[in-house]
Amino acid sequence: MPLTENQQAEIEAQQAARAQTRRPTVPALEEILFRPIPVLDHGFVRVIDYMGDDSAIVQAARVSYGRGTKRVSEDAALICYLMRRRHTSPFEMCEIKLHVKLPIFVARQWIRHRTANVNEYSARYSILDREFYIPAPEHLAAQSRENRQGRGEVLGSEEAAHVIALLREDAERCYAHYLEMLNEDDAPALAKPKGTPRDPNRLGLARELARMNLTLNTYTQWYWKIDLHNLLHFLALRLEAHAQYEIRAYAEAIMGIVAAWVPITYQAFRDYILGAVTFSAPMLAVLQRMLKGERMDQPQSGLSKREWAELMAALGSPPEDQPAGET
Amino acid sequence: MPLTENQQAEIEAQQAARAQTRRPTVPALEEILFRPIPVLDHGFVRVIDYMGDDSAIVQAARVSYGRGTKRVSEDAALICYLMRRRHTSPFEMCEIKLHVKLPIFVARQWIRHRTANVNEYSARYSILDREFYIPAPEHLAAQSRENRQGRGEVLGSEEAAHVIALLREDAERCYAHYLEMLNEDDAPALAKPKGTPRDPNRLGLARELARMNLTLNTYTQWYWKIDLHNLLHFLALRLEAHAQYEIRAYAEAIMGIVAAWVPITYQAFRDYILGAVTFSAPMLAVLQRMLKGERMDQPQSGLSKREWAELMAALGSPPEDQPAGET
Amino acid sequence: MPLTENQQAEIEAQQAARAQTRRPTVPALEEILFRPIPVLDHGFVRVIDYMGDDSAIVQAARVSYGRGTKRVSEDAALICYLMRRRHTSPFEMCEIKLHVKLPIFVARQWIRHRTANVNEYSARYSILDREFYIPAPEHLAAQSRENRQGRGEVLGSEEAAHVIALLREDAERCYAHYLEMLNEDDAPALAKPKGTPRDPNRLGLARELARMNLTLNTYTQWYWKIDLHNLLHFLALRLEAHAQYEIRAYAEAIMGIVAAWVPITYQAFRDYILGAVTFSAPMLAVLQRMLKGERMDQPQSGLSKREWAELMAALGSPPEDQPAGET
Amino acid sequence: MPLTENQQAEIEAQQAARAQTRRPTVPALEEILFRPIPVLDHGFVRVIDYMGDDSAIVQAARVSYGRGTKRVSEDAALICYLMRRRHTSPFEMCEIKLHVKLPIFVARQWIRHRTANVNEYSARYSILDREFYIPAPEHLAAQSRENRQGRGEVLGSEEAAHVIALLREDAERCYAHYLEMLNEDDAPALAKPKGTPRDPNRLGLARELARMNLTLNTYTQWYWKIDLHNLLHFLALRLEAHAQYEIRAYAEAIMGIVAAWVPITYQAFRDYILGAVTFSAPMLAVLQRMLKGERMDQPQSGLSKREWAELMAALGSPPEDQPAGET
Repeated sequence: MPLTENQQAEIEAQQAARAQTRRPTVPALEEILFRPIPVLDHGFVRVIDYMGDDSAIVQAARVSYGRGTKRVSEDAALICYLMRRRHTSPFEMCEIKLHVKLPIFVARQWIRHRTANVNEYSARYSILDREFYIPAPEHLAAQSRENRQGRGEVLGSEEAAHVIALLREDAERCYAHYLEMLNEDDAPALAKPKGTPRDPNRLGLARELARMNLTLNTYTQWYWKIDLHNLLHFLALRLEAHAQYEIRAYAEAIMGIVAAWVPITYQAFRDYILGAVTFSAPMLAVLQRMLKGERMDQPQSGLSKREWAELMAALGSPPEDQPAGET
Repeated sequence: MPLTENQQAEIEAQQAARAQTRRPTVPALEEILFRPIPVLDHGFVRVIDYMGDDSAIVQAARVSYGRGTKRVSEDAALICYLMRRRHTSPFEMCEIKLHVKLPIFVARQWIRHRTANVNEYSARYSILDREFYIPAPEHLAAQSRENRQGRGEVLGSEEAAHVIALLREDAERCYAHYLEMLNEDDAPALAKPKGTPRDPNRLGLARELARMNLTLNTYTQWYWKIDLHNLLHFLALRLEAHAQYEIRAYAEAIMGIVAAWVPITYQAFRDYILGAVTFSAPMLAVLQRMLKGERMDQPQSGLSKREWAELMAALGSPPEDQPAGET
Repeated sequence: MPLTENQQAEIEAQQAARAQTRRPTVPALEEILFRPIPVLDHGFVRVIDYMGDDSAIVQAARVSYGRGTKRVSEDAALICYLMRRRHTSPFEMCEIKLHVKLPIFVARQWIRHRTANVNEYSARYSILDREFYIPAPEHLAAQSRENRQGRGEVLGSEEAAHVIALLREDAERCYAHYLEMLNEDDAPALAKPKGTPRDPNRLGLARELARMNLTLNTYTQWYWKIDLHNLLHFLALRLEAHAQYEIRAYAEAIMGIVAAWVPITYQAFRDYILGAVTFSAPMLAVLQRMLKGERMDQPQSGLSKREWAELMAALGSPPEDQPAGET
Repeated sequence: MPLTENQQAEIEAQQAARAQTRRPTVPALEEILFRPIPVLDHGFVRVIDYMGDDSAIVQAARVSYGRGTKRVSEDAALICYLMRRRHTSPFEMCEIKLHVKLPIFVARQWIRHRTANVNEYSARYSILDREFYIPAPEHLAAQSRENRQGRGEVLGSEEAAHVIALLREDAERCYAHYLEMLNEDDAPALAKPKGTPRDPNRLGLARELARMNLTLNTYTQWYWKIDLHNLLHFLALRLEAHAQYEIRAYAEAIMGIVAAWVPITYQAFRDYILGAVTFSAPMLAVLQRMLKGERMDQPQSGLSKREWAELMAALGSPPEDQPAGET
């Protein structure tokens, strides 16, 4: 279900508006403001508002009277230093507000990040859209054998087709019964007040009850506002290989937004957080022996198989002993 | 689905255990420790652990070296004072840990309280139980006409029976397909590793994907830990008449726990929070005129209908003008 | 110590800057952006940045695709409803960033509000300014007799003069010794790197240590960023008669900022929070008897003296029995 | 100032008390419950209460009906896995409550950890003790030359003696004037109500005002309650070489408490957090070249001097290029 004409017009009206401001402004982000960036089959992320830019981080770190910037290279060096040493509070001085459309089971993972502000579309008050996430066949995979909470081998085309049919039929049947219980004829427009009843002889069930019949792949939506430090923490966790593909897809869309918004911070985040690897004390001990020229294998190292595999991966060695789904 | 024998045995083993401690201990709460208190058709609340008691609040308020108690009456007076004046930090010094089984749509409301610690049963790692919330007929009601996000009139028995049939059939079909996609024969015991596949020729779908086919009335469970101040805030919001019945049922069960745990605080909470009414500046102005003997009605008062109704309700007057679903 | 020329120039440069934005913009707030609003003898509050306006609250409450506004009157009605019913999450969708200069003992009260982002000027890294809060004589008062943590009678002029002399001399001597221990000649400009030592034969003490000699009325400064809901909660607590005068002075300055920023919310906050009174269950019972025409006094009412006084004050009666410092 | 007889008696009374409980109990922690562990010259940390133990972490991670433990070795493996992969929520299921006496400038650093519950001794309501932190000569050091917010070379004995004299005299004079302004004869016992005035002809200044004359090394005290995850985060930051010595002293005392409370978690924390080193993407690239046998120095590496020094330190190489105060 694409945006309605009305929604499209509202978005365009916002994009057309212009005002003068003395606040820090980021042209690259203004460019994409309000525009839905598609994610999964029916989801999106839209930037609604933002506060601050790279130099606002510098300004806060220095508690300065002006913008806080000296030369760009000094600012970049300071941002790298703050990122590297986990001085997180200056990054909290930037804030972003997103409008997100996402399947309910993804929303349930997402909401576990508690340091954000959320306003979710209310299914007690309104009727949800007739939209369900149906994975593409290449994302339908079996339970991983090594990693007990991930995916392994992709399903064959027959099994995938069967799964897709089941998901689609169940979601649609449940949604049809949702409307039937509500005593509504059809999926109404967003927040439309209750229309003519389908059957004038029935009361229809309250929305807060009828929604319980929907499947977890039904789409919901929310406004989500978060500071840059906590956003980067969200991204670090949700861009990991262990994160479920569906939430990773949103994290990747948001990474593009961060790159437009705070390009220096974005690069520091790639170098010092995403691209970084933490070596435990036992791993460091092994590494020091390797640097002295000792040849090592997993049993000699005293590391668990999992840790050995992580070490080898970090060092760029062929991941022979490495359990699938761990890289 | 009742507790399995194994679960029952684990609970009994914990209840049978005894240790000596120097910590404050509440015999009335020890009495019910670990025991599931039933809520809705398949849910429960169990107290797993607690820290502090009424006198721990006094002790923290006084930053004392000892237990902080003087006489019981002085402690009670201090607790009432703290509650009345919203001095909330001493109440944060008590903590409770609950194990809760609850429908997913209730969990989605509950999780909006961000100041708690949560560990939810993982549907990426484990298989959910075959348990769904099916409301009793007396809880099936139509959308409220006055209050746009609540319930109004109870459904007639025929419509109710139809709704219950739809809810049950959809939940069961979706669950059966969940097992089919997983390639599992039957609902396994909790956290049981993947068993013999139903069909050896299929891979079976990863758990993190298959779960999206479940309906929102499927039960989940979590460990939930919260301090007493934030628990009382949760209860104040979720015991309100506007709260959805299903979460109110949990709030009521927890109220019983609070009464056993911190009886003085419980009474102060009833008197100064639950039983209290806040009068806005416009309502106070009306009240002052009434006390001078003026006879008032809604149009004269200048209050909205909704506010007038709230004022009348607070003053114990017959709620003639009051919109349904508001008391 | 007024702003340095350099600080003044930095502020003016920011005020002179203009950019185009598609974001919601509040002209009345743009007007005062960056400009220090004086508080106490050397303190200030400056607005550094903001996100959102009154209609951003409406937009979030409706999870809308456009600005969310319909007519101004509808927006105002929705904001009042949200405020009255304590639907707080839409107010979290606006954010403000302030630069505050304040005495350390005020900073210690302020920081107890945990739901904000803070970057404080670092006395480990920089040298604090030679600025101390010295109260005006009319703010020097004795301990309240009734309210055990407030102020009562104002000191006589002789005692006040003595107090002021002690405060000033101690602060200045401690600061002079701070510089002496640092081995610095004079109070340096903000964040100036360590200058020529006063005495080339001494090492000078590390800043993180020397600062411990300063008195609690020394000024510090920070960037402080908070959402509108949590800001209003801060204001409600810090505008109360029980709040210490010195932090109340900051709260009042911030109220002026809120009035410029979100005027509809500001008015709703005055009517439904600041101007509201909460009646406990026992107070309500008394009120109901009074409305039936019963004449009541404190002993008859069963209320404590303190609660009776609060009830009378709320009803606009002469506060005869009311303890001083409570209104 | 040691504990008063009265305080000592209160502590002993608590230690003598015993009760039966079904809750998880940690004998090694019960042993030290309530007893002040000395820190700095007048400070202490006392454990007041605790919730949970190592197996409570396992229990929450498994959302189990019983204690959740299988074999000790399996529990330890799970705890290591959770620590290593930063699965933090199960560690939030343990909670500890401490009573801490600490200098105000340390309290100001400490309070920046926002995810804790705090009740501080109120200087609006009570009179602070006559106790100041005076560093031992070996902790008096000059500003570090390389690390702009730390300490470098220790002061010579003459300069140290001068610093100590200044700190002591200023603190004592300020405190004496504090009592004089309060019109109190002497430092009263904790929370003692205002005594006979020193001078019956003066009102005396309110406590909330007089306190502003105290120096930042005056001791305060608070009850501080935090969950284990956030406690470990506090410890990781405050045990770092860059942390100020005075707060590190408290962190070290608390490490001893953690070792007694949750020994398996304690060991995992040492191996996977404290003893771990994070290599950024650029550092990893250098490391991979070194493992292939390339000889590297800082200019060749492309790393900044600071990062090169960190890499060498992590690999156990002589820290030739390393700035002081960085290891």
